[in-house]
Amino acid sequence: MGHPKYPPQLSHDEEAYLLSNLKDWSIAHGLAVRPAPSFVQQSQDPSGVLAATAPVTLFPSLFPKSCFEEGMAIQKAYNELYSAISRDEEWLRDIIGELTDVDDFVARLWRTHLEVKKEGYVQDLSLGLFRSDYMVHQEHAKAGSSLGLKQVEFNTIASSFGGLSSKVSAMHNYLLGIDAYPKSMSSILKKDSLRQSKSITSLANGLAVAHKAYGAGLSNRPLCLLFIVQDPERNVFDQRHIEYALQESHGVRTFRLPFGETLLHTRLDSDRTLLYTPPGSPSMTYEVTTVYFRAGYSPDDYTKEEDWAARLHMEKSRAIKCPSILTHLAGCKKVQQVLATPQSPHLKRFLPDAEVASRLLATFAPIYPLDDSEAGQQARELATNPASAARYVLKPQREGGGNNVYRKSIPPFLEKLPTTHWPAYILMEMIEPPPLQNAILRNGEIQSGGVICELGVYGVCLWRHGSGEEKKGEIVESWEAGYLLRTKGDQSEEGGVAAGFGAVDSCCLVDG
Amino acid sequence: MGHPKYPPQLSHDEEAYLLSNLKDWSIAHGLAVRPAPSFVQQSQDPSGVLAATAPVTLFPSLFPKSCFEEGMAIQKAYNELYSAISRDEEWLRDIIGELTDVDDFVARLWRTHLEVKKEGYVQDLSLGLFRSDYMVHQEHAKAGSSLGLKQVEFNTIASSFGGLSSKVSAMHNYLLGIDAYPKSMSSILKKDSLRQSKSITSLANGLAVAHKAYGAGLSNRPLCLLFIVQDPERNVFDQRHIEYALQESHGVRTFRLPFGETLLHTRLDSDRTLLYTPPGSPSMTYEVTTVYFRAGYSPDDYTKEEDWAARLHMEKSRAIKCPSILTHLAGCKKVQQVLATPQSPHLKRFLPDAEVASRLLATFAPIYPLDDSEAGQQARELATNPASAARYVLKPQREGGGNNVYRKSIPPFLEKLPTTHWPAYILMEMIEPPPLQNAILRNGEIQSGGVICELGVYGVCLWRHGSGEEKKGEIVESWEAGYLLRTKGDQSEEGGVAAGFGAVDSCCLVDG
Repeated sequence: MGHPKYPPQLSHDEEAYLLSNLKDWSIAHGLAVRPAPSFVQQSQDPSGVLAATAPVTLFPSLFPKSCFEEGMAIQKAYNELYSAISRDEEWLRDIIGELTDVDDFVARLWRTHLEVKKEGYVQDLSLGLFRSDYMVHQEHAKAGSSLGLKQVEFNTIASSFGGLSSKVSAMHNYLLGIDAYPKSMSSILKKDSLRQSKSITSLANGLAVAHKAYGAGLSNRPLCLLFIVQDPERNVFDQRHIEYALQESHGVRTFRLPFGETLLHTRLDSDRTLLYTPPGSPSMTYEVTTVYFRAGYSPDDYTKEEDWAARLHMEKSRAIKCPSILTHLAGCKKVQQVLATPQSPHLKRFLPDAEVASRLLATFAPIYPLDDSEAGQQARELATNPASAARYVLKPQREGGGNNVYRKSIPPFLEKLPTTHWPAYILMEMIEPPPLQNAILRNGEIQSGGVICELGVYGVCLWRHGSGEEKKGEIVESWEAGYLLRTKGDQSEEGGVAAGFGAVDSCCLVDG
Repeated sequence: MGHPKYPPQLSHDEEAYLLSNLKDWSIAHGLAVRPAPSFVQQSQDPSGVLAATAPVTLFPSLFPKSCFEEGMAIQKAYNELYSAISRDEEWLRDIIGELTDVDDFVARLWRTHLEVKKEGYVQDLSLGLFRSDYMVHQEHAKAGSSLGLKQVEFNTIASSFGGLSSKVSAMHNYLLGIDAYPKSMSSILKKDSLRQSKSITSLANGLAVAHKAYGAGLSNRPLCLLFIVQDPERNVFDQRHIEYALQESHGVRTFRLPFGETLLHTRLDSDRTLLYTPPGSPSMTYEVTTVYFRAGYSPDDYTKEEDWAARLHMEKSRAIKCPSILTHLAGCKKVQQVLATPQSPHLKRFLPDAEVASRLLATFAPIYPLDDSEAGQQARELATNPASAARYVLKPQREGGGNNVYRKSIPPFLEKLPTTHWPAYILMEMIEPPPLQNAILRNGEIQSGGVICELGVYGVCLWRHGSGEEKKGEIVESWEAGYLLRTKGDQSEEGGVAAGFGAVDSCCLVDG
């Protein structure tokens, strides 16, 4: 990319102007989070009226235009791919089957699906609010280097930051408009180069489309849409912006229900209509059209046996799930891995169009299993040799795993691990992003330096699952739904500056 | 008004639902303030990224519809009245002349005006963003009680809360829409009864009209509008919402300049064009079309001699002032007093239309001087007799005075005060508001109980001052610009719960 002077050095007065405008704009527009307990203790603000500017970058990060546009352009194909995977129960069963021994969480999700299947699903529609996450990969070849987009992961449940990403792109645009960025940068940092993320509107439209597709309801009660949430949720404004858009633009009634309280406030009618009685107005009962999970994606959300009963209860219901359990499972790393294993036959099963499939394939970083398959043998060689291991990362198959092992730490790590445990990991080629700089405001502190950016592209997809042997379902709606840029200090691999998610950011597109 | 059960008692769950929605909505929409130092110490958040829900009422307060509508209807007449007063320099001189011995601040403002006048004003246009503040007065007569609106004061400078009042009325409307208010209240608390305040849009339109009326400028530089502000300003979001509306809807460039730094960053061209060079982008210089004072209204803002030089400097300039010094002075309590003195001849001087004048007159609470005039003699008798004093409040003439003396404390207070100091006070009939209840969220605490509400009606007025002997100027634009309801605990008279300004609120109109 070659813009070593970006972002610009600011004088004291320039930085003061930028920061005071950033801090006021962010709060005035809800680009905010509830403060971390390390910043404001609960005892200081027991009723929770304080908020802070969300962690944000001071400048939009530079991002190669061709990569950005490719990511946006292929999102509809990704929607179709993951919709198709979640409709292919037989295929999923085989993939998931390999995990059930090593991942209790995935196993339990699968059993929950089977339990519903026994009684029969009563809702054929399924909604996905997806996010495909990428990094820019700089390929060094003899002929020079080239940039491409490589997928980090594909989220099929609780894809977050759609609310804040619209806001941060608007904020960077505002800051540019009030000359908070030095004129010396105007050849790079200009209005035409900034990309607004329409994710709030677009994700809200997705939920509204599902709500409408549900139809008039069977219970003669007013309809509502449920956000199933974690409690407490520091990132609540991110979700609220989508709720407000749903209410203001579509008149859809929404409620937030902590996952752990699901069984207290909802019940299934005899025809499996999902009914919700808000504790705040117990005389009213609503028919739930759509269950939007912003919780339930991590084993940590299931703290008691009732939480699994709650998930089953919702899956059984007539409400449209965003996502269904099959769609949740389609987002397993294992699925990403089998698609991205070199010479994998799977992609063309779901995307028969070779041209479309090849565009997605180009965004896969090679991923190997560590099992007894042919690819697994190859992987074991790559992983145990320090020279080749230096280009890889070892990740647990388990969802929400953390604890990745990087590069030259891989061979000694595997040496200590019994080989029977090796299949619990996958080996992924490291994505090598080009060097970038930015400054992050986080909990009131500014951190400047090298950063790594992750582009997330949102996708909305509503489909019919299809029933019976021959019906394979169909896509009802599918669109690309805006983007997120998420930026963290480049030291985080070694456990440096950016704990947590870093900062929300937006793209300043550059050629190259 | 007779709604003793308002606001409703909430169950624990109902209150939790109301509060969680209120707290999230307020931050997501910038209904916020920077936290008080007693709540968050500066050392905890040195860079100032924290904000808190602004003090708000949980429910919109009941307000008599006829009073509300009358207040809105007469705002244009009030705009005209105060525009006419500020154009009548001779009359103002006589009024202000009586104050100059007792009020240094007013005296200094007047001298500043005279100094500019010596050189001649170069800007004929003048902008007022006014707010006329009222309380509902319950008149007890033999034939029963009746309700009327009585003016508390008329603000001609730095009329605040136009930003937050639009937001709080939208929030109460939102809370009603999500059934956060019990259905049992639906005969009173219903959509038709809530009044949205359009003050953000309408005040921004006022500033935009002045900006445009300024014309193309003389300096060939880009144009801007200056907000002259206090620093630090906890109520910054209130002002920011107007700034953002100006930028988004009108494309007007605005800057915030702390009053105390005026001379550092502005200068007058030889033709008295006001030029501003933002410290954050020192290579750019702007021509200022309009100076909007959100500071400079209180003696406390003038901490050094340069601050007076700054006020003079701006007054001299070609920029349109919001307000000019004459308009600032027209807002003196003394002016309100002479208009409201029983049998005053002044009102008809400015409002020749008898019907219009009588509507305004009906909103005056009788105010007496404590001087040697006939009305003054009458006042002295009323004030020294404990029986009659019980219906009055004694207020210092000085602006921003505080330290009012109420009811039966007046006679002993005056007894100790040398009679030569008596003319520094005015005697005002107490406004007796009907009993009302509400709950206020403030710094995370809820205070419930009796409250007092103050209705503020905003007005925008742009006029030509007129020059020469015969030209008396003319009004260019005038409109009513939304409203504020400000509510505090009814104990505040005795120094009880609600220090500061209480809470922002909105109206739920009721008959009666």
